[in-house]
Amino acid sequence: MTADATRQHATAPGGIGNLGPGLDVLGCAVSGLRDEVTAQWFDAPRITLLDPGHPELPSTSSRHTAAIAAAAVLAHAKRRGVGLRAAGIALTVRKGLPLSGGQGGSAASAAAGASAANALLGAGLDASALLACCLDAEAKVSGRHLDNIASALLGGIVLVRSLDPIDVVRLPTPSGLQLVLAHPEQRLSTARSRRALPTTVARDVMTHQMAQVAAMVAACYGDDLPLFGRALDDRYAEPARAPLIPGFVEAKRAALEAGALGTSVSGAGPSSFAIVADVETARHVALAMQAAYDGLGIACSTRLATVDQDGTIVRAL
Amino acid sequence: MTADATRQHATAPGGIGNLGPGLDVLGCAVSGLRDEVTAQWFDAPRITLLDPGHPELPSTSSRHTAAIAAAAVLAHAKRRGVGLRAAGIALTVRKGLPLSGGQGGSAASAAAGASAANALLGAGLDASALLACCLDAEAKVSGRHLDNIASALLGGIVLVRSLDPIDVVRLPTPSGLQLVLAHPEQRLSTARSRRALPTTVARDVMTHQMAQVAAMVAACYGDDLPLFGRALDDRYAEPARAPLIPGFVEAKRAALEAGALGTSVSGAGPSSFAIVADVETARHVALAMQAAYDGLGIACSTRLATVDQDGTIVRAL
Repeated sequence: MTADATRQHATAPGGIGNLGPGLDVLGCAVSGLRDEVTAQWFDAPRITLLDPGHPELPSTSSRHTAAIAAAAVLAHAKRRGVGLRAAGIALTVRKGLPLSGGQGGSAASAAAGASAANALLGAGLDASALLACCLDAEAKVSGRHLDNIASALLGGIVLVRSLDPIDVVRLPTPSGLQLVLAHPEQRLSTARSRRALPTTVARDVMTHQMAQVAAMVAACYGDDLPLFGRALDDRYAEPARAPLIPGFVEAKRAALEAGALGTSVSGAGPSSFAIVADVETARHVALAMQAAYDGLGIACSTRLATVDQDGTIVRAL
Repeated sequence: MTADATRQHATAPGGIGNLGPGLDVLGCAVSGLRDEVTAQWFDAPRITLLDPGHPELPSTSSRHTAAIAAAAVLAHAKRRGVGLRAAGIALTVRKGLPLSGGQGGSAASAAAGASAANALLGAGLDASALLACCLDAEAKVSGRHLDNIASALLGGIVLVRSLDPIDVVRLPTPSGLQLVLAHPEQRLSTARSRRALPTTVARDVMTHQMAQVAAMVAACYGDDLPLFGRALDDRYAEPARAPLIPGFVEAKRAALEAGALGTSVSGAGPSSFAIVADVETARHVALAMQAAYDGLGIACSTRLATVDQDGTIVRAL
């Protein structure tokens, strides 16, 4: 990563936002699919989007998360008086992650866009400043939260203590943790899934959620995967969202019967995930979730993954 | 600790329940004052209270937490067919902790009572079973929660994930953590303080509380005292209880100005506590809190302490 390179390339992983009971608070980077952004000097001012990465994504830079985040990085550099080699920066996006479905694709694009632009500008921003730039982007397309952004940027399992000021903790991953992801062929807009959440909660639900999120953090540090599974017990968002995701309840039951330690909705859905202790069981769990959806006539794909530990990776081209 | 001894003596520390944002979920054992219970074989059936420890405490064994917890331990032993040396057990209680005020006195008596009886009966119960016996007692006098009980029994900072089934995690203590306790001469019943808590909360408050409690846990494992202080930010119970505790707001402000990393109500109040990074600052904070109460004409005592690491200590007499 050097300021002299004329092109910088960044890739960022998808993730599970709202991890279990951790609405807006816990996120987890997922291995495998990645979004890629290449940043290069360009003679048009500000940020130009050479390729948005997908025909359904906005080609206007003010509406694409990679470009919004890169624009925030560029504005930062200008305020600091960093000399630019051209009027602006052009981005080329390659989407490895699906556009929707609760896999953290918009956050991955933002993390890669911000990181590629930052590298081109001499890597003047630290992780906290990059998080702030990406938060701008995520706020415009999906809501003001950092769980997906922080995991895409830092990798691992992340805890978002505060947005104002930004205060994020990267947690250790319990050994052996395997993920099973199920992606039913359903569309569920983040906005609709968000509207389903009650605006108020009973005190007992709050204390339950506090205790579970805290126990997940203890499980990460204590390397206690069974505790991680027991604490993956969401009594707030999951009950509200399950009715919007036909097949989720059946797939969850099948996953637990097949040996999963815990299951919940990924992000705002309709994807779901299961936590499993070993690869062999993970295969069984994937087949069981698949069979549950099949039995209901709902097309669904599953994949095995682990917690991505790298976060965003940048290299000069 | 041997089953052959004819008298067993247990001491248990007080604690800060509802630690900061962790209503019912986080507790912390406090060094210094302890409740003591001596258990001995006795010819009357069940549990006899030879001395309740204080004239204002019930002398009836069914209403004193040490005796209720010991009775649960005795019932457990009888179910397991443990042979008794006499018809029952007699308890002598010495109160080191005040009767009320949010210092975990009822939980300390329960922990000491259960542990002394358990030792007399051959120490057949593990920590989880003892927690269950003490929970019976605490539920009768102060509410069904384990934060104070678990810290009194296990020592340290504790996280209560679940009551049914009991699932408790003992957390590491961040190095250097000093406590300042302020005890204004006010009476505030736990019941009244509990009634002040709203029965429902806004979603934003819930996510804030989840994030803070989780960050406190991360701070314990990560040995990050500043994070522990930042996360000590309760937007649920403290705002509801502060109006019932004249002087709290002023003492809190004074503590923070004197260098405390965080402050909140201890248990259900009216005691409060501050988290401080070193003894020198702790002295300043104690004086500042004292001065704030003095300025309002409210009598108040303060003391310095640390997190008790021993929990309940049992020895044969």
